[in-house]
Amino acid sequence: MSNQEDTGRLVDAMGGVERIETKILDHGFIALVDMMPRLIPEGKTADFAIAQAARTSYGRGTRQVSEDESLIRYLMRHKHSTPFEFCELKFHVRMPIFVARQWIRHRTASVNEYSARYSVMSDDFYTPHAEDVCLQSMENKQGRDGSAESSIAQKFVDDSSRVHGDAYASYLSAIEGGVARETARCILPVSAYTEWYWKCDLHNIFHFLKLRMDSHAQKEIRVYAEAMYATIKPLFPLACSAFEDYRLNAMELTAAEVEAITSGHAPRIKNKREIQEWSEKAKKLGL
Amino acid sequence: MSNQEDTGRLVDAMGGVERIETKILDHGFIALVDMMPRLIPEGKTADFAIAQAARTSYGRGTRQVSEDESLIRYLMRHKHSTPFEFCELKFHVRMPIFVARQWIRHRTASVNEYSARYSVMSDDFYTPHAEDVCLQSMENKQGRDGSAESSIAQKFVDDSSRVHGDAYASYLSAIEGGVARETARCILPVSAYTEWYWKCDLHNIFHFLKLRMDSHAQKEIRVYAEAMYATIKPLFPLACSAFEDYRLNAMELTAAEVEAITSGHAPRIKNKREIQEWSEKAKKLGL
Amino acid sequence: MSNQEDTGRLVDAMGGVERIETKILDHGFIALVDMMPRLIPEGKTADFAIAQAARTSYGRGTRQVSEDESLIRYLMRHKHSTPFEFCELKFHVRMPIFVARQWIRHRTASVNEYSARYSVMSDDFYTPHAEDVCLQSMENKQGRDGSAESSIAQKFVDDSSRVHGDAYASYLSAIEGGVARETARCILPVSAYTEWYWKCDLHNIFHFLKLRMDSHAQKEIRVYAEAMYATIKPLFPLACSAFEDYRLNAMELTAAEVEAITSGHAPRIKNKREIQEWSEKAKKLGL
Amino acid sequence: MSNQEDTGRLVDAMGGVERIETKILDHGFIALVDMMPRLIPEGKTADFAIAQAARTSYGRGTRQVSEDESLIRYLMRHKHSTPFEFCELKFHVRMPIFVARQWIRHRTASVNEYSARYSVMSDDFYTPHAEDVCLQSMENKQGRDGSAESSIAQKFVDDSSRVHGDAYASYLSAIEGGVARETARCILPVSAYTEWYWKCDLHNIFHFLKLRMDSHAQKEIRVYAEAMYATIKPLFPLACSAFEDYRLNAMELTAAEVEAITSGHAPRIKNKREIQEWSEKAKKLGL
Repeated sequence: MSNQEDTGRLVDAMGGVERIETKILDHGFIALVDMMPRLIPEGKTADFAIAQAARTSYGRGTRQVSEDESLIRYLMRHKHSTPFEFCELKFHVRMPIFVARQWIRHRTASVNEYSARYSVMSDDFYTPHAEDVCLQSMENKQGRDGSAESSIAQKFVDDSSRVHGDAYASYLSAIEGGVARETARCILPVSAYTEWYWKCDLHNIFHFLKLRMDSHAQKEIRVYAEAMYATIKPLFPLACSAFEDYRLNAMELTAAEVEAITSGHAPRIKNKREIQEWSEKAKKLGL
Repeated sequence: MSNQEDTGRLVDAMGGVERIETKILDHGFIALVDMMPRLIPEGKTADFAIAQAARTSYGRGTRQVSEDESLIRYLMRHKHSTPFEFCELKFHVRMPIFVARQWIRHRTASVNEYSARYSVMSDDFYTPHAEDVCLQSMENKQGRDGSAESSIAQKFVDDSSRVHGDAYASYLSAIEGGVARETARCILPVSAYTEWYWKCDLHNIFHFLKLRMDSHAQKEIRVYAEAMYATIKPLFPLACSAFEDYRLNAMELTAAEVEAITSGHAPRIKNKREIQEWSEKAKKLGL
Repeated sequence: MSNQEDTGRLVDAMGGVERIETKILDHGFIALVDMMPRLIPEGKTADFAIAQAARTSYGRGTRQVSEDESLIRYLMRHKHSTPFEFCELKFHVRMPIFVARQWIRHRTASVNEYSARYSVMSDDFYTPHAEDVCLQSMENKQGRDGSAESSIAQKFVDDSSRVHGDAYASYLSAIEGGVARETARCILPVSAYTEWYWKCDLHNIFHFLKLRMDSHAQKEIRVYAEAMYATIKPLFPLACSAFEDYRLNAMELTAAEVEAITSGHAPRIKNKREIQEWSEKAKKLGL
Repeated sequence: MSNQEDTGRLVDAMGGVERIETKILDHGFIALVDMMPRLIPEGKTADFAIAQAARTSYGRGTRQVSEDESLIRYLMRHKHSTPFEFCELKFHVRMPIFVARQWIRHRTASVNEYSARYSVMSDDFYTPHAEDVCLQSMENKQGRDGSAESSIAQKFVDDSSRVHGDAYASYLSAIEGGVARETARCILPVSAYTEWYWKCDLHNIFHFLKLRMDSHAQKEIRVYAEAMYATIKPLFPLACSAFEDYRLNAMELTAAEVEAITSGHAPRIKNKREIQEWSEKAKKLGL
């Protein structure tokens, strides 16, 4: 009955380490502080918990690592997502408020954030390097493209420093005058750093990563997503490899594109943006 | 089989009006823009949909308004929450970013927010009236209490205006210099106004209202919650009356407090804050 | 500020009809009983609410049907799912318990089910037609394949009738003897019909339909999914057309398959099942 | 910055045991198979993770067990639920299908269930003991009350055995005749045992327990809830003690009941059932 009969000696999946931390941007970090499964059978990776959950539905039998791998790849390929939900990752993150605002849109996670009503905010603000002050992309209305002129970039960096300094001095002065923290903080820019504990299951983390590691994601959240992925990849090597092969580096062909390849004719699409998307795919496919 | 056989003529629950809007704070609003049910049987209120969903489980028979009322009150009293989920409310809201940040913590809602990556932000910022610049509460570490000295309050209002002005001018100057919107907006304070469409079911709205109409909620979100409640109360009078009687104005007694009342002795609690909570309840109960 | 300024006359999206019902299997049905938006601008379809929500983030301007279409197709293609969440559909469904058990796995819906603790169960049971009694598929361990011998099929139909009859007679006899309904019902087969109200937003309905209209879904739930889709397609023609082009009839190529097409060599995959999946895709693409 | 600096030696919260299992009903069990946190600072309980998450918002400083306790009790009393979400419990459960159907209504959990499409069902069915075959309650339309006459109870037990036997023989015969498993299983009663992996966070488990340990819950699910609670109580003693004091043994007074106590008059309620609820509370309070 038990799916765990021969698990053998259990070892710490995080190798006895308390946190696996990466510094991000000028004052931020992302640190893995706990995971589930935390204790894993010696000689296996945390991936084993995915296969274990799946085998409740799909069968029993032996469970060598090679079979775990093929099962996990099957689950990922066919979007059987529930077994991946059986793994959890808990992060401690420090990031600018505007990054937190994008992050929190992922609703299937647990969050406890630093409270600016309860505690005094630090004077850490995100200021981009001048070379990260880029031009508005004309193609991607939500993105950036190429470097701004250095005088413009430098002006923005200088403006940021001045606004940060004035806002924080005004904030502190209000706090010192006894003004309620919840009121005083209204003056602080969205570049101010906040921090939180964030816990999410592996299925939803892959969804987060697919969106936030994408080249269209804002760079300042992308660097967190990339560090998160670098942290979990050695812990869940089988699941991550399947994620790369079947999600991250997969390509989705629309009905019209399938028909175009089959028929050898151009796809029946008139929308300019869609035609461009097709030409990028066709180029990648060598068609 | 049908629960709806004799519904009669259907009328618009919003009375033919496109939006029911209330102005909030200096530049905000909350507007109901759609609801489910939108078409209701003449002579009934939107509450009928709660009773209709409940009757799937609990039985059939006649369905006069008086029976709907008693059923809805029973559901609320006994926390049978699913029938309330069958009603939806869709709001268009404009509020400062720091209010949006508290609001978004309610995860069981659908949200589409104005994108500062895609569009230019307006120069509307929330500046509290001087009389709303209050002192940090000593009792409630998350709250405010009493007015600040007028000179301190006025200084904060002046500081806010200056920081808003400088931040927005720097923002605009960056935008005009071609800097990506997603970068330029980092400089803007959390008092900047954003807006969104927000859709939530009635059960989760009651949960939102219970938390955000509470005297411990920050005043700047409480005014939105109060306006939201004023908007829905005439639409769902039966559910809202039950909400007031069994949630908003209900009192929860802890195990120790129940024992104290029964025995006539002081409750066996040592925690200072808990003792104070009890004395407030005892006072309200006239004990 | 308003996204709705020129909506014009509003009409009932369900055309004044109280329910749009389809009979399913031997004693089941699926009926649309309400939707959001229910009142729509004359000359538009319910799709307008998707575009309206999206425009909060993506911009304003004119909103002709042609622009709604191109916006909705963009949202679907790029998996911008939140605007689709702003539409809701409420169904009244009657189906066998084993179908309800697959259906309820979709967690992002509101459900109120007929209670066998509160009410007496009817004597409706699902009995497959003899031609629907198929053989266990050898390829698809979760599926069926080809017809069973008619004697075996007929025996199963006969066995089902006998077991249904005996179970229901025993159930009724217990009920008449005063036994608690919650106990008596334990004897009833999973072929017994139950019913519920089920409300779900359009994004999650598309997810449901993608899984349950798939040829690998069990036929007895597939017929419900197909009827659901036939019901909503005329109501959301733009969204459904995008769903067909970018989801239902789309094809996902794995990283190895992309590489295979680009290089002209066989994909570097060793897994038997994956090789077969590739050969089906290659055939469809005419490669 | 770190909330974990002085955690000291980490030990297995489950004491090196692989599963903590309790037998339930005639063929069922509930077994805890993993938890988060799994590794805990020596000398602490798993409760520490609740306090750790809360301190992100509420402050830092020392964190002795006594302070953890007072913090956790505060969080539970004031319904600050997110810190409890940072703990997860994973159970392997075997229960009758009708119990699984009640259980799955709790949507905020991850589930992987044994698949009757993929695997052959066992011949384990739940048959109540004759003394558990009770009468339908007249007061509680969803409940049972007092023992049935022994002849009626015995007849139900006998009927159950016969129907189980015939249904399973017919099922097996179909399977042996090659009929698809997904079809053959339709004949099986809801008393058949299924099993699943079920993972849920502690906040939502407390919600589950509050509903399913209640005297109005069906006995056959209540025994699982009670065993679940007995399993987690030694693991989270601080949280469970707070749960008992502020949830399980708390009493909610309606607005009318508060007024009645204050004024010394009877509450202004006319609804018969509500009056009875009040008289039970008044009796318990010694009023």
